[in-house]
Amino acid sequence: MTLDIIIQAEPIALAPPPCEGEGAVVRFEGRVRGEEKGRPIRALIYEAYQPMAVRQMTTILHELGKSHPCLSVRVRHRIGEIAVGEAAIVVEATALHRAEAFALVTAFMDRLKQDVPIWKMRAIPRES
Amino acid sequence: MTLDIIIQAEPIALAPPPCEGEGAVVRFEGRVRGEEKGRPIRALIYEAYQPMAVRQMTTILHELGKSHPCLSVRVRHRIGEIAVGEAAIVVEATALHRAEAFALVTAFMDRLKQDVPIWKMRAIPRES
Repeated sequence: MTLDIIIQAEPIALAPPPCEGEGAVVRFEGRVRGEEKGRPIRALIYEAYQPMAVRQMTTILHELGKSHPCLSVRVRHRIGEIAVGEAAIVVEATALHRAEAFALVTAFMDRLKQDVPIWKMRAIPRES
Repeated sequence: MTLDIIIQAEPIALAPPPCEGEGAVVRFEGRVRGEEKGRPIRALIYEAYQPMAVRQMTTILHELGKSHPCLSVRVRHRIGEIAVGEAAIVVEATALHRAEAFALVTAFMDRLKQDVPIWKMRAIPRES
């Protein structure tokens, strides 16, 4: 299973994966919503402890790949200021069949929130 | 929940959805694999009974939307000859949170195979 994990300040742009025999491509994109804790915002600021974050994501994906074997996984997590509507994260898995790809992406998102040092540092309120 | 369902002979090209307050975009792409029933192929030919297929997909999505409320769902199913590596189907759901979008897309794929008159008419073997 090939892994490609990048934490970046630039907007996320992930072209479709090349064809390598997979039957399924599952892609999740998490976007910044217009409110945070009930208050309207215009952006979120994400922070990460990068070396550990990449290492943890690698460990989690290798572990999940044992139960849900995929061909490839790409993760892009953005940090810094992310405007409402823009993607904070994209996770994409390719697999022979869809069940493994769905299982890996959903399990990864659950683990990411718990075990990876990337966090919402603060929200920037919308000007009224 | 807005629905946008198209059965088409042309290759599927689905631009990212516009931002409408969703926090999650889940996209599944099913590609034609290089073998069918253990034999190498270069393409599959899909056929559909189109009016009924669109009606069934609409019914299924409205039904699934009750348990898994999403903001929008787009489905593109290709028919005719589809080369290995190309997408036969793309399903994309947007929702406030990821759980609903994942649940709707996976449940829809299960129902599609059972209840929608779109089928693999035949496989074109790879020239040896």
